[in-house]
Amino acid sequence: MSRSSRTFDDQFNAFCQDSDAYLQGAPEGDLSGLTFAAKDIFDVAGQVTGGDNPDWKATHPPATSTARVVQALVDAGATMVGKTITDELTRGIFGENVHYGTPANPRAPGRVPGGSSSGSAAAVAGGLVDFALGSDTGGSVRVPASFCGLFGLRPTHGRIPLDGILLQAPSYDTIGWFARDAESFARVGAVLLSAGAAAPRPARLVVAQDAFDLAEPPVAKALRPALDIVASIIGPVSSQVLAPAGLTEWSDHQQVLQGREAWDTVKEWVDQVNPRFSFEVSDRYVMARSISDSQVAAAQAGRNSIVARMNEVFADVATVVCLPSTVAPAPPTGQKVSARHSLRLRNSALTSIAGNTGRPQISLPMAEVDGLPVGLSLLGDRGSDEMLIALAREIAAAL
Amino acid sequence: MSRSSRTFDDQFNAFCQDSDAYLQGAPEGDLSGLTFAAKDIFDVAGQVTGGDNPDWKATHPPATSTARVVQALVDAGATMVGKTITDELTRGIFGENVHYGTPANPRAPGRVPGGSSSGSAAAVAGGLVDFALGSDTGGSVRVPASFCGLFGLRPTHGRIPLDGILLQAPSYDTIGWFARDAESFARVGAVLLSAGAAAPRPARLVVAQDAFDLAEPPVAKALRPALDIVASIIGPVSSQVLAPAGLTEWSDHQQVLQGREAWDTVKEWVDQVNPRFSFEVSDRYVMARSISDSQVAAAQAGRNSIVARMNEVFADVATVVCLPSTVAPAPPTGQKVSARHSLRLRNSALTSIAGNTGRPQISLPMAEVDGLPVGLSLLGDRGSDEMLIALAREIAAAL
Repeated sequence: MSRSSRTFDDQFNAFCQDSDAYLQGAPEGDLSGLTFAAKDIFDVAGQVTGGDNPDWKATHPPATSTARVVQALVDAGATMVGKTITDELTRGIFGENVHYGTPANPRAPGRVPGGSSSGSAAAVAGGLVDFALGSDTGGSVRVPASFCGLFGLRPTHGRIPLDGILLQAPSYDTIGWFARDAESFARVGAVLLSAGAAAPRPARLVVAQDAFDLAEPPVAKALRPALDIVASIIGPVSSQVLAPAGLTEWSDHQQVLQGREAWDTVKEWVDQVNPRFSFEVSDRYVMARSISDSQVAAAQAGRNSIVARMNEVFADVATVVCLPSTVAPAPPTGQKVSARHSLRLRNSALTSIAGNTGRPQISLPMAEVDGLPVGLSLLGDRGSDEMLIALAREIAAAL
Repeated sequence: MSRSSRTFDDQFNAFCQDSDAYLQGAPEGDLSGLTFAAKDIFDVAGQVTGGDNPDWKATHPPATSTARVVQALVDAGATMVGKTITDELTRGIFGENVHYGTPANPRAPGRVPGGSSSGSAAAVAGGLVDFALGSDTGGSVRVPASFCGLFGLRPTHGRIPLDGILLQAPSYDTIGWFARDAESFARVGAVLLSAGAAAPRPARLVVAQDAFDLAEPPVAKALRPALDIVASIIGPVSSQVLAPAGLTEWSDHQQVLQGREAWDTVKEWVDQVNPRFSFEVSDRYVMARSISDSQVAAAQAGRNSIVARMNEVFADVATVVCLPSTVAPAPPTGQKVSARHSLRLRNSALTSIAGNTGRPQISLPMAEVDGLPVGLSLLGDRGSDEMLIALAREIAAAL
């Protein structure tokens, strides 16, 4: 790690002010000339990986090596210029960190950037870097991509290694990235997904009717022209209800399973340190602590049913499912906890489809509602990450 | 308010560093020459009453007038030299504030001072002031008095006005004070309790057998000589079990009722601000939020039974009940949250007797276990505050 010297003004409060992480890219490589940032959950040798919680920072030593994906990007020529703000310990999807401030949404002033990969999305949307790394456990790449008008991918679960990353809930954790344009997005993907086999080009587009029904009407309406473009590229379109009993039930199962895993991840540390959290974050941990083993078993059975149902949707021919990335554009900053909680649950109904089944989902910046970005998502089968990225390029070229 | 100039070094981290509250005592009065401090829940005109939570401080304006009791002390000649640290929003009985640090226990190095009136107890025990104001909702004067080897009173509920004080749970809230010696303690009491009628001298001492059974054996043993002195002064002694079904049940009722009231006190603010709390404090609020109306009704019925039972104990003749102030001396600082939780509940079984019945209880610094102070408590009937203070003087003189 060389001592940094950022050449830009962080006007969006996207970067961690107490980190000087800087990794000069290798002289030649596929990403030469690109700069990037990484959420404060990626290890950089010599720096504390802080998860943007002050007590986590104070009670953990500097990382002794650099996260594998960060090193791969640097080896490919990209220069890492800093660490970005996250919701504390990745527990949030709106990007409001009470300790270090809320990164601005460069595309929607006065509104949240989305989280938990908030600073990464803000840094990319604000043009401070070419791309940025985030993570997505319950929507933490897809939601900020939607709110900030970016390309963002939650990859197939297990596809990209998580070595050297501060995890939350292992059976849901993934890492992803953001870019402003499909070309840059694809260049990064070629490095991060280097081991992948090619997935077939989709032969069918499934419009997730129940997902669109959950979106606020102006969002569903704004996404319609984008959907038509996607349909014109992919071909045969059908509409399906994914969850006959409601997507909210799918989200409920994820809340239970992710909550249990997230509490298991931190409970010993919480007991030892009595850390400072926002009330909202503590609330989620306390509620998670109260989840019983029988609730976990029931939720796991529910998750198995979701997997079986989505296997049906993807059966027979190569399929892409289309859905809104979020039910609404970015809300204003400073909303009440209760209002945020309600909106979070509604978005989770959308994000839990990929979350529960480990499938990849890419959010495309294809629409606006009253000038505020909102994303259209394409959800592919496991391992179809490269295909989704290629589709994104094709769609972007058609805009 | 004149700008301060404390003439001492706050070696015990007892005082709020971000307050310069200073009120010069009136030139002549019963408390002339005495200095005092007040917990950061007492209004001082021109200062924010912060409750030692950073977000409470940031979201509340300076007080426009001074709390009635503070003004009464100043008018009586005492000089207020500063505000003292409290557990945030008075939610704790060990005195560990994650935002502003834990005041030292001058009598037990390496151990907590007790809370929530932690800084007030530390300032008095460390000789920085002659006396200090605290508050006691669930033990926040009695516990630090016990841990720091001080005289401390929880007065009759409703006896001392709470105007200008950041409250927690109105049906349990009281304010009290600490001093190192019984004479100073009584001088302050004469000012704060000026409107009182004299209670009769007690004719009977009841030893609360179940309360002593809850104390750790070395504590019960260490308090025995003190108990003998009290018995020799008061006269006829009998031993009684106060709570046939167990004092823990009494504490459980208080946890429910106090918890509900405490949540009602802050819930709108919490929803608006999403404040930073220690995990432990949020935990208590989240659990309190989940208390149902039927649980409240059951606990209120339980409280009514406690009142009836204690009315029996105090029937017929003027009575004083004797009990340990705490089950153990001060624990070390930095214990795990789970260990603190367990010890808090055990102490609450003792403190809930006065709490649930609104009776006054004075803690006397009359014993040590391995050099660590532990208090003996005298619990009187409603309105007997002056009598308890007079007894404290008599007992102290007999030591």
